[in-house]
Amino acid sequence: MIRGNFKNYFLIFIISIFLISQTVLSAGSYNKENNENIFTILALAIILILARISSLVERFGQPAVLGELLIGVILGNLSLLGFYFFDKFKQDPILLFLSELGVIILLFQIGLESNIQKITKVGIRAFLVACVGVLAPFILGTYIIGPRLFPGLSFNTYIFLGATLTATSVGITARVFQDLKKLHLPEAQIVLGAAVIDDVLGLIILAIVSSIVTFGTINFGTIFYISLKALAFLIGSIILGIFISPYVGRFLSKIHTGLGMKFTMAISFCFVFAYLAQKFGLAPIVGAFAAGLVLDPVHFKYFKDPEIIEDIKREIKELDHKTKERFLSIINHHSNQHIEDLIRPTALFLVPLFFVITGMNVKLETMFNLNVLFKALIITTIAIIGKVVSGLVAGRVNKFLVGFGMAPRGEVGLIFATIGKELNVVSDELFSIIVTVVILTTLLTPPILSSILKKQEEKTI
Amino acid sequence: MIRGNFKNYFLIFIISIFLISQTVLSAGSYNKENNENIFTILALAIILILARISSLVERFGQPAVLGELLIGVILGNLSLLGFYFFDKFKQDPILLFLSELGVIILLFQIGLESNIQKITKVGIRAFLVACVGVLAPFILGTYIIGPRLFPGLSFNTYIFLGATLTATSVGITARVFQDLKKLHLPEAQIVLGAAVIDDVLGLIILAIVSSIVTFGTINFGTIFYISLKALAFLIGSIILGIFISPYVGRFLSKIHTGLGMKFTMAISFCFVFAYLAQKFGLAPIVGAFAAGLVLDPVHFKYFKDPEIIEDIKREIKELDHKTKERFLSIINHHSNQHIEDLIRPTALFLVPLFFVITGMNVKLETMFNLNVLFKALIITTIAIIGKVVSGLVAGRVNKFLVGFGMAPRGEVGLIFATIGKELNVVSDELFSIIVTVVILTTLLTPPILSSILKKQEEKTI
Repeated sequence: MIRGNFKNYFLIFIISIFLISQTVLSAGSYNKENNENIFTILALAIILILARISSLVERFGQPAVLGELLIGVILGNLSLLGFYFFDKFKQDPILLFLSELGVIILLFQIGLESNIQKITKVGIRAFLVACVGVLAPFILGTYIIGPRLFPGLSFNTYIFLGATLTATSVGITARVFQDLKKLHLPEAQIVLGAAVIDDVLGLIILAIVSSIVTFGTINFGTIFYISLKALAFLIGSIILGIFISPYVGRFLSKIHTGLGMKFTMAISFCFVFAYLAQKFGLAPIVGAFAAGLVLDPVHFKYFKDPEIIEDIKREIKELDHKTKERFLSIINHHSNQHIEDLIRPTALFLVPLFFVITGMNVKLETMFNLNVLFKALIITTIAIIGKVVSGLVAGRVNKFLVGFGMAPRGEVGLIFATIGKELNVVSDELFSIIVTVVILTTLLTPPILSSILKKQEEKTI
Repeated sequence: MIRGNFKNYFLIFIISIFLISQTVLSAGSYNKENNENIFTILALAIILILARISSLVERFGQPAVLGELLIGVILGNLSLLGFYFFDKFKQDPILLFLSELGVIILLFQIGLESNIQKITKVGIRAFLVACVGVLAPFILGTYIIGPRLFPGLSFNTYIFLGATLTATSVGITARVFQDLKKLHLPEAQIVLGAAVIDDVLGLIILAIVSSIVTFGTINFGTIFYISLKALAFLIGSIILGIFISPYVGRFLSKIHTGLGMKFTMAISFCFVFAYLAQKFGLAPIVGAFAAGLVLDPVHFKYFKDPEIIEDIKREIKELDHKTKERFLSIINHHSNQHIEDLIRPTALFLVPLFFVITGMNVKLETMFNLNVLFKALIITTIAIIGKVVSGLVAGRVNKFLVGFGMAPRGEVGLIFATIGKELNVVSDELFSIIVTVVILTTLLTPPILSSILKKQEEKTI
């Protein structure tokens, strides 16, 4: 069985190699704009196929996202072996846009699979986790690691180091929970809630730190304004989610012009929320997640059923009561999943792009510098400890699952580091170290989470 | 019923107006690259919602594509009223890419819904239709219209005018047949087949005409090479479709890692074919159409069933033989549609983009020049007559349906006109006229086709 599958994967692999070689050979004749578009289309096919092959890691109990990240790391670093072809992928603005759209759709999906009642139920615990998960790495980074690893630098540098370690990147963790079908766990809900709050806290910290470095003092007016905006968005979304979404669902269900309207309304809703989140100063993915919560699939059950269900409903009318009931329960089970089913193919198309391209941006050469690698390993350890500590306040759940779930750092950390560099408080060396820390936390989280989940399952059995 | 729906549409319309005004107000703060991406995401939402509203035309018996084109025309020409906001959409490279991807996926879908046996069965008729549909407009344009409407110009100009009138743009017609659920008609199959052959003939004509204008003589070597390449691609695809695709289907079905693999293989297959078509000198949409034919959904029936079908299969085991048979027939009916179901949401997302943006590129101001408009109307009439004539050789089918189905001219005509302009044989005036002809044939085809189809239905009843 597994052998047969390997054979198939091998064949697909050979096909991919052929396609890639074709592309490389034809890359010379690459000049017109139309040609660029067709090249991007081929690049999409190559990334999608390779991402799918990389899901082989699932056979070893690893989440598919790890495979996507690793294939990305390989493609993105083939230039070290003198093979520069894939470097074009990293700079293609269309691929970058589609990958950003991918993570927005992922968080929308995660929001759809989550439940706003469940999340508000763990709300206080998520808030505690977020606060500890921001404070612990900040204090460790600013007061302990900074002065020890980089003696003699200004306090502002230490503050920036601390700040870069605070923000959780929720994409990786959410994908791991989704891949392993564990999104329903309270741990997953706590991490998702905490990551949203983290984003608000990250905003505030960025405002504070920038204000200290630039003006030497904290500008409370600005910070108040930033926090107010972000909170207004979040509270507005929660109110929408709890009170208005049933009506939205019923309203939308009255317009039954088939699949098209449902899909368009759902995906436009996601895009508009992503846009609004950015306008309110938050990350677009926070908006997409909120949109998913608001459009909780339960409220879509009023929608017209897919054709197969209508056909079956017609057929079961003649059956006896008990059999009919059993069929109806199957149908109800599947009707409720409908909005997610509509989004899934778009997610299948765009989400792997995000993780492959995230992997491609991993610069392995930064790790060749032993000084950088050594310091990065220490800071990574501290960064993970800082978040694992936050799991301790998560209540009666698997504290390690929450803690390690909060561990990945991503683009937010890099944004901090970039600003620090612009303000001349983060040196080139420190920047490389921060990049390496982001890489390590990103790549380590999937295997760690899946091994924790496996142990937990073994215990329960 | 209809009143209630209008109220709903009105509400959605108000929401859209709000969103658009929001965007306009915030467009000032539009500076960072990240902001551009989020702007494109909002633009996507706006286009998708407006395209969906425009599908109101379906209530008046018109295909949805007409609504999409018209909303595009409105958005694209609001600048005439001093409202320049939507002009940004037209220049957004990401929106342009996604719209190109949209028409590729549309033709893939059309290919999936078509059947290679059916198309090869009408092959000879499609070939005749394509030849007459190229020759008639070419002769009418070069020898009749050219010398009469533009006396005193060089013969090369007349040749170019004739050539621009030859190429059918299959996107519009395919979408109309799809919207009105008429793709199974032999007329639809003939038009699709003829459009593919048209693309090859168009290539050859372009080579001939360019060679005459540039060198004053025909370069048979080049033309032979171009034709050979294009034919190699088409014949290769047909062979793949007839002989190899059952094995491809069975091979792919052995890898059952769920929806993801099916979707990825299908869409990558489409992208790779689109790429190869371009490499062989044909339009990417011809490749996508061929990919759809090769991946005929019949061959995907070996695939693992969706969850609902598995649940029902488990349930019906206990039922009596007759009831079981009835359920199995429902299940079989729905299993076969599976690949198309997977592609549909992606199509719902991307296809409307293509038609809205096509509409946006309609420049209404070209029609304000009465001289241009007058000549364009005459040429449009001739252009349509030239194609309607081709319907006469389509055999025992509705000849008008085939003829008008071949009528739309699109990007290929514009490519000809652009090359003619570069070679200095097409004046600015003639260029404007050709653009107007393309617009008119594009906008007139959907209502004409739907009225022919309606008449045909009335006759049958």
